[in-house]
Amino acid sequence: MTITITAFEHSPDGGKGLARDMRVRWALEETGQPYKVRLVANQAMKQPAHLAQHPFGQIPTYEEGNLVLFESGAIVLHIVERHAGLLPHHANARARAIAWLFAALNTVEPPILELSTVTLLERDQPWYAERLPMVEARVRDRLDLLSSRLGDAEWLDGPFSAGDLMMVSVLLRSRSSGILDEYPNLAAYVARGEARQAYRRAFAAQLAINARA
Amino acid sequence: MTITITAFEHSPDGGKGLARDMRVRWALEETGQPYKVRLVANQAMKQPAHLAQHPFGQIPTYEEGNLVLFESGAIVLHIVERHAGLLPHHANARARAIAWLFAALNTVEPPILELSTVTLLERDQPWYAERLPMVEARVRDRLDLLSSRLGDAEWLDGPFSAGDLMMVSVLLRSRSSGILDEYPNLAAYVARGEARQAYRRAFAAQLAINARA
Repeated sequence: MTITITAFEHSPDGGKGLARDMRVRWALEETGQPYKVRLVANQAMKQPAHLAQHPFGQIPTYEEGNLVLFESGAIVLHIVERHAGLLPHHANARARAIAWLFAALNTVEPPILELSTVTLLERDQPWYAERLPMVEARVRDRLDLLSSRLGDAEWLDGPFSAGDLMMVSVLLRSRSSGILDEYPNLAAYVARGEARQAYRRAFAAQLAINARA
Repeated sequence: MTITITAFEHSPDGGKGLARDMRVRWALEETGQPYKVRLVANQAMKQPAHLAQHPFGQIPTYEEGNLVLFESGAIVLHIVERHAGLLPHHANARARAIAWLFAALNTVEPPILELSTVTLLERDQPWYAERLPMVEARVRDRLDLLSSRLGDAEWLDGPFSAGDLMMVSVLLRSRSSGILDEYPNLAAYVARGEARQAYRRAFAAQLAINARA
């Protein structure tokens, strides 16, 4: 059955690979699954047709036969549960890889997203200069501990897994703030993710859409 | 094998059931799994012994034999994958229930948590009065769409699932702001969750710890 995902017709990041379809593309490339992409225009995001697929009017969605899914975490998990390559075989190691996937989404991404929101939406507010360091501190609270845990390891828990795929994807969203580069081991970890062939194919595919005239 | 989870020795909410061990207790009660609780003191959260179990120094963790897990979403998913009751049998319905679990954690909880942070940490800041409505608007953006999707249904997608368990848990964190009550169907949905016997047992267990002298 054909897999179809949705992506922004015009991504807010202009093709830097930070939109959430990138995570799904990467997982599909790692597991060798071909897929099609349907682009959704900004003005169509909150319209009934798209809301029927994604209750919060976002991207990505995932369609395969009668199945329609939303939420990048759920889609990546669905892909890696059905196709080998990104979850360990041993049950305990598998559960731990999934824990890292959740940690990326629920513990590391929220403060990074808050920082993006601040720099995007509050830059002209009188409190910006005073509040920015407070939000940056929340990101560092998380990256301090993540950096300690990773140490000199190549990946978070054994071989590259869906947990690493999601953690690298989330950390990439902190790079423009400069905070990622304060942690050389995390910056190198992200670079190892970006160097993977599957990442590069996924990145090129989303860039091709956003680089159109 | 005995299941042991961790919880706050003194929960910041004093036993209102908003700490993340509650989600795990509730899932264990729904699936009929006995469990033990190990309390972690505030000053022990970021110490090496606890960080070895939870890389970000939080609760809950989950121990069962050689397996140690962290992240409430991962723990709940692990429980419901192994014990019947909170995931549909049909593969597509199962995947959709998991999508709602991720949506609760990655789409609905972040703005609700940001609102809690604002009211907790920025109340004395000069920008509080002007910024609060901006953050409240982000919560309403999500609850508007969630309320539309739920409509008159009892649960989000068929019978009560792990997705509902997590969504109710997350929405409970918005109740003190008054925003939940702006959406009668969501308030009633949360009340249906709270009325479940398993929820009540889990709530009583965490309250008993926090109500000690």
